[in-house]
Amino acid sequence: MQILNNKTDAQQQLRALKQQGKRIAFVPTMGNLHEGHLTLVHQAKQQADIVVVSIYVNPLQFGPNEDYSAYPRTLEKDSQQLTNEGVDFLFLPTNETIYPRGKEHHTTVKVIDSLTNKLCGASRPGHFTGVTTVVNILFNIIQPNVAIFGKKDFQQLMVIRRMTEDLSLPIEIVGGDIMREKNGLAMSSRNGYLSSTEKDKAAHLRAIIIATQKQIEAGDTNFSGLIRHAKQQLENDGFKVDYFSIVRTDDLEPAIKNDKQLLIAAAAWLGKPRLIDNQEVFLK
Amino acid sequence: MQILNNKTDAQQQLRALKQQGKRIAFVPTMGNLHEGHLTLVHQAKQQADIVVVSIYVNPLQFGPNEDYSAYPRTLEKDSQQLTNEGVDFLFLPTNETIYPRGKEHHTTVKVIDSLTNKLCGASRPGHFTGVTTVVNILFNIIQPNVAIFGKKDFQQLMVIRRMTEDLSLPIEIVGGDIMREKNGLAMSSRNGYLSSTEKDKAAHLRAIIIATQKQIEAGDTNFSGLIRHAKQQLENDGFKVDYFSIVRTDDLEPAIKNDKQLLIAAAAWLGKPRLIDNQEVFLK
Repeated sequence: MQILNNKTDAQQQLRALKQQGKRIAFVPTMGNLHEGHLTLVHQAKQQADIVVVSIYVNPLQFGPNEDYSAYPRTLEKDSQQLTNEGVDFLFLPTNETIYPRGKEHHTTVKVIDSLTNKLCGASRPGHFTGVTTVVNILFNIIQPNVAIFGKKDFQQLMVIRRMTEDLSLPIEIVGGDIMREKNGLAMSSRNGYLSSTEKDKAAHLRAIIIATQKQIEAGDTNFSGLIRHAKQQLENDGFKVDYFSIVRTDDLEPAIKNDKQLLIAAAAWLGKPRLIDNQEVFLK
Repeated sequence: MQILNNKTDAQQQLRALKQQGKRIAFVPTMGNLHEGHLTLVHQAKQQADIVVVSIYVNPLQFGPNEDYSAYPRTLEKDSQQLTNEGVDFLFLPTNETIYPRGKEHHTTVKVIDSLTNKLCGASRPGHFTGVTTVVNILFNIIQPNVAIFGKKDFQQLMVIRRMTEDLSLPIEIVGGDIMREKNGLAMSSRNGYLSSTEKDKAAHLRAIIIATQKQIEAGDTNFSGLIRHAKQQLENDGFKVDYFSIVRTDDLEPAIKNDKQLLIAAAAWLGKPRLIDNQEVFLK
């Protein structure tokens, strides 16, 4: 695996490969890699000749009271895992590479509010603009044919898809499946903040989402009732609920009767970390 | 000259040429072409193997009270001129190609306020975001190696340069020289709104800018005095002044003593149209 430490290196090496007709897949990450990320890398390998992974903890997508400084940085272990997976290039930009004039003095790429101000966006103002801005920059440097984003961050996947379509970027966006711990908890770098007791409890988030899914599949369309019930259960289990929503997958608007493609999405704090999870539900 | 009517056509044709190692220069326009545009095309031809011109009147960069609907559309004449100049491709996107969900429901690309809220940006809120958004989309479709923007719209050139740098787009931005009528008036599609009497008077804008330049080059650093005097002269000549500014070329902040790279920039209405012009001043 070759390390790309700066933009010029990355552009030169990858341009040469593209000139040779190689197809490039890109997996942007913030590092602290786990099975979830490695699954995205697997998918990337199936999609292309060359796999590029980036590790960059993007300051622009963290709020002032969020965990930017505390975000776990485990480069050596990450790098080993990616080498083992047969990744071709690891791009490690610095803040100076991405935001040479400082993140406050930087061009932004912003998807419409109706996609970004709800669900995770409601409690994280500016978060998705931070995400789309950095992803746009990374796309312009790497110029991949295809990029993989995990479905755990379903809204993020949708927002990036929308940016890519709206700006006519010639990049295919692929959603990667959610990887889970044995108890069902969605894998996340932030799970590292959980004690082992909390980790057991954290699995209830998944269980409550699945129970809601089963109710919907059984024909229950009283979505507000289902949401109220799920929130109550989460609170009883010691979660502080950020949101528990049943929305349409295409525009993330609240689902109504007769909608067929739904997403149950939830975010809740358990102790220190804010956990998120979701489940697509397809009705006939 | 080949007409590219849609995105897929444009992408396929131009990608094939890039694969062959051809260097592509791009000149985005809003049509109603005059000598100024053709000079940009000349510069483009010197820079690359293939020249692509686009004609698209971008609704996103017009304010609600501006001349979007009235903006002159002269495709047949434009097309003939570009053929005569030996342009290779003319890209003619529709609103549906650029803003398939409508311009209100679209991802935006926004350069920082300190570059976009002054000079022309002060009286045209949202204008430069409209420009950077459409240019970003056109760049992503055409994927040129180099793009040419006229220096008449000096702030636009700077804003596009900044966007390109900030987003790490691998595109060289070249400024094209201002073409002028015999009387000194900068060529502009909007000159067509002027009567012949107004056209004579319009040349005073240039004359007053040049007089100011001479004063500065002679050592006058009382910029606010020079500005006041120039505005007064313009008003005496029947202009309604939008701005007359002496700024630094690098950040468009008001120039102060000892600044060496200056821009005199002005915008003023004469009858119906709002005319703009500028002059760089380099001091030793």
